[in-house]
This record gives sequence, C-alpha cells and structure tokens, in this order.
Amino acid sequence: MNSEFDIIHRYFKRIDSRAILGIGDDAALINIAPGAELAISTDTLVCGRHFFADADPNKLGHKSLAVNLSDMAAMGAEPRWALLALTLPEALVQPQQTWLQQFSAGFFALADRHCIELIGGDTTAGPLNINIQIIGTVDAGQALRRSGARPDDDIWVSGVLGSAALALQHELGNIALADAEIDNCMSALLTPVPRIDLGRRLIGLAHSAIDISDGLVADLGHILESSHVSGVIHLADIPCLPQLKIRLTQPLAVHCLLAGGDDYELCFTAPRVHREQINKLAIELKIPLTRIGKILIGEEGLIVKDAHDVVLTLEHTGYDHFSARSR
Amino acid sequence: MNSEFDIIHRYFKRIDSRAILGIGDDAALINIAPGAELAISTDTLVCGRHFFADADPNKLGHKSLAVNLSDMAAMGAEPRWALLALTLPEALVQPQQTWLQQFSAGFFALADRHCIELIGGDTTAGPLNINIQIIGTVDAGQALRRSGARPDDDIWVSGVLGSAALALQHELGNIALADAEIDNCMSALLTPVPRIDLGRRLIGLAHSAIDISDGLVADLGHILESSHVSGVIHLADIPCLPQLKIRLTQPLAVHCLLAGGDDYELCFTAPRVHREQINKLAIELKIPLTRIGKILIGEEGLIVKDAHDVVLTLEHTGYDHFSARSR
Repeated sequence: MNSEFDIIHRYFKRIDSRAILGIGDDAALINIAPGAELAISTDTLVCGRHFFADADPNKLGHKSLAVNLSDMAAMGAEPRWALLALTLPEALVQPQQTWLQQFSAGFFALADRHCIELIGGDTTAGPLNINIQIIGTVDAGQALRRSGARPDDDIWVSGVLGSAALALQHELGNIALADAEIDNCMSALLTPVPRIDLGRRLIGLAHSAIDISDGLVADLGHILESSHVSGVIHLADIPCLPQLKIRLTQPLAVHCLLAGGDDYELCFTAPRVHREQINKLAIELKIPLTRIGKILIGEEGLIVKDAHDVVLTLEHTGYDHFSARSR
Repeated sequence: MNSEFDIIHRYFKRIDSRAILGIGDDAALINIAPGAELAISTDTLVCGRHFFADADPNKLGHKSLAVNLSDMAAMGAEPRWALLALTLPEALVQPQQTWLQQFSAGFFALADRHCIELIGGDTTAGPLNINIQIIGTVDAGQALRRSGARPDDDIWVSGVLGSAALALQHELGNIALADAEIDNCMSALLTPVPRIDLGRRLIGLAHSAIDISDGLVADLGHILESSHVSGVIHLADIPCLPQLKIRLTQPLAVHCLLAGGDDYELCFTAPRVHREQINKLAIELKIPLTRIGKILIGEEGLIVKDAHDVVLTLEHTGYDHFSARSR
C-alpha cells in the first residue's frame, strides 16, 4: 500500500517549485511583498479516522482549528485568516440539531483568542469531513523550517508528549487510566493548545522546527531527513505526564510517547549557545521546554536510547494515514 | 432542514470582518501589499454528490481544479497557487491502482495551462473527498464582486448554459440524448473550462460578476441580492446547445438551463456603454458572450420571461447542497 509520503512524493511533488517553500514542510511560503511572506497550510479531520462519530462538536471545532494553528506555530508564523470546508451528513444539519452551533462556538472561541478571521469556505453534504486552510504572515526569510538543523544542535520539545495517545488507548480499552488521571490526557487529545507564541519567539533561536502531529520519532525524523543530519534522543528525558512515566515498562506506553502522535507540541533544534535564552523563554511563556537529545553528523537517522544507554528498536515510528492502525 | 446559505449565515458569518471582502462572494480578498490583493477560495467535490464513484480520475483531477479556478475567474483574479486536501478510500491507494496517477495527471494538465503551482495539501484516509484551495492575485480595488450591479446594466453570460445538467439528466436516464449529442454535453459536465482570461479582461468593463455553479437563477440571484437590485432575463435569449434548445418545451429542459448548475460560465453585468467592447472581447477570446436581460431598480428579485413575454414560475431555483436533489 502507498504511504501518505509515497503518495505526495510520487504523484504531487514536483521539482520546479517557484514558491519560496513548496510541499514538504509544515506550511508553504510565498513571497507577497518586500519583507513579508505568507505561510499557508491545510489539514483535514475525518470522522472515524481522526475523531469518533460521537465526538463533542464544540471540542471538535477547537481541535480542527488547533491542528492547523500548530502548523503555523511550527513555522514561527502569525496565523491571520482561515477558510473552512465542511462536508456534513444531512443528519447534522436538521433544524433541531445543535451540532453546527456547538462546532462553530468551539471554532470561534479559539479563533478569537488568536484574532484569526474566517474569510471563506465551502459547505457540502456527505460523510463528515472537516478541512481548514490557515494563512499566516512571517517576516521574509525568518520562517522556521524543517531543514535547518545542524550538527551539535540541542533537540528540544515543548510541553509533555504522549498524553493524547494515552487517552486514545484508554478510550480503546487498551490501557486503563484511573479517574483522576483521565482529565489531563483527555484534554490533550480533544483540545490541544497550539504553541503559536512559542513558535514566533523561537525565530532567531531555533535552527529548525516541526510540530508533533504524527509522533516524535516520525516528526523529528522529518527534521533529520530534510536537514541531512542524524540525531540521538534519550527516552528518560522526554517529558510526559506521571501516568505515562510509570507505565514506560510497557511497550504500548513507549509507543504512546514516541509514536502516538496528536501531541501538537513543537520539536525544534537550537545551538547550545541559546540554551539559557530558551530556558528563560520557557519560564516567561510558562511552557515546559526540555532538551531531549542532540543532532549528529551523518544521515543514519534517529537513535533512541533507554535509561541504560541501550538503543531501542522502533517498530512503529509514526502515524501514517494509510497504515493498518485504526482508531 | 438548514440550507447551505442558512448554515453559513447562521453559524459562520460575522459582522466585524477585517478582510477587504470576507464570506459571501466567489472568493475572499485580503490586502497583502500596496496595490495588491489576494483572492482566496475553496471548493470541495464529494463522491456520490458531485461525481459518481466510477468517475474517470483524470477528468476528476481536471474538474476539481476547474471549479476552483472558476471562482478566481469570477473575481477577475489571476490564480497562482493551489493546495489539495485529498481524503482517499484505502482501495484507491493500493499499489496496483492507477487512480492517483490519473487524478494528478488531470490536475496538473490544467494547472500547467494556467501556471498554477501546487504548494501544499493533506492526504488522509476516508470516504473520497476532494478539497482544493486556490489563491490568486488581483490589483487592489479591481476585483469583480457580486455587489456591483447597477440599474440599467445589461446582464450577460459567457458560453452556453445547461449542457452539464443535460448530460447529468442523460446519465440518470431522465432524458435520452442521441449519440451524436452526447459528447458536447459530457465534456461540459466532466471537463468544464474555467473562464480565467475572460474574468481578467472584464475588469473595467463589468460592474459585477459571479460564476454559475449552482444554476443561472440562483447565481444571478446572488448578484441581485448583494447589489440590492432586481432583474429580468429572457428565456429565449439564454444561450444553449441545439439539443437543449429543441427540448425547451419540457420542464426538465428548462430546469437544466435555468437551475441545472455545474455550468462554470460567468454571469456578469455591465453598463450599456460597454456593449461594443464586450462584443469585441467575445470575438478576441473566441468565447460567446450573450446579453440575456437587464438590471432593474428595486429589490423584487429575478423575473424570467418566456418567448411570449409571460413570466415563468420558478420552482427549483438552484442547487442547494442540502436539498433533496440527489445525483
């Protein structure tokens, strides 16, 4: 079966890009005026694939926009405008239904927080499919790219990882979280917080950045591949909730942390010389920023070491939309 | 049931738009630099709703882009960049499948003809859903809007109308076209030609414009409503293929012409003083441009008169994605 990356590379990526940055980063960049660039991205959430059919529509409105804002954060761009293409089953548009009211309330609550204007869209009937396009601005030449990592850079992540995946595994009945543990994990899954301020403040500090949507190993892998470098990270250093930490003897918990995806945190690389500034930024923004490894020379990919410095074998390295994994 | 327009107005349209032109035209306009604006639009094609499941993927690639380019044409904008969000059933991404290869070939053949660059997108698994976002440029203040029609303007349409609807009715078994008649109609349905050059050349000539996607009566109705005017058109003057003309005694044929939709021609209004220039433009671009009526004062909506000057009663005034009409 063709993977998502196969599909893009085989059928849709072309060599002769005239945009500043075309397919293959968190957003495309186009030059619009001297000194200014637009960052443009699109993300789709499909019912039964990215969310359950009975998902809370308010939270879905939030998350649909949040995953798109996360792409802007990864570029260091300021999101400005959004378009919303909704494909809706007829049952959801009956007059007595409140689905649309709740969905739009969740969407606009997040949009208003970031002064984002909904400028257009399309509404069609069919199986539930939520597509958003987001357009942001960034100073020319300043956007954070996947391709800028350099040997000896520190590898950093924001927030904690694996919480959303843990919540999903709980929902699927594969892990049993105690009641007291559920809230944090469920809000990571249902209402992720895009790291927009962080992304913008990392301009000038970070050499490269990506948002973690497919899982740390897969997304950090994109940085390494685009930058033609390799890297090493330490499992014990990856920040996660205590409820995940205590389960890290289980392979499924390790999978949640490294490859669960849906984190919408930023993974970025930065030179050692900026360590202190980045630590100060963490305090200022009240967002944990944690060093988890470093960039190495060569193109051997990513090494993950456990607490005993033993290299882990990674079977599931990330979320592929056409892999066998279902949810 | 909520109509598409109800949904947009009730849940997604807001008063305090900061964009130059937000929700409610063929594209949104945002100011990006002194003298320049971006026109941005998105359109989705849903399997089973906008096309049959066994549709030729090459033609589908063409049409998916064409319907978006038609929105740029209606604004007088030059389309420049596109994003493609594809939701694909797993069966279509099997290695032996040629669907993606054919789809991308159809997409790029049209994109290349207009120097449009695919700069991004998203690929997810799920029921087939094709969403494209198109971004174009237009000189500041020059875009053709729905809201510019003025009393005494001529009402014009490009090309011929009703052909795509006739082909669809043939496919559905409601009208039997002879073999010799089918080709023209099927190509109108499957590979519409967006009127980009025409749209750009209408800047300075037309007061208002829209592309006819939902049917002439519905789309011209949007111009009248946005412009706070009314209008009259003459059925006998509306250009259509001979195979439709000879059937105009049948209500279904009249429906195809007035409300069939999927035409992707432009409907525009222009002052009398530009008649000669518009006729010259038709010859230069080799596109029929036909006067079908005129704009009147008042807000009584649209009157359609038959060959005997009798006012027609219009039951089905346009395509609504949540109406009972299925295809």
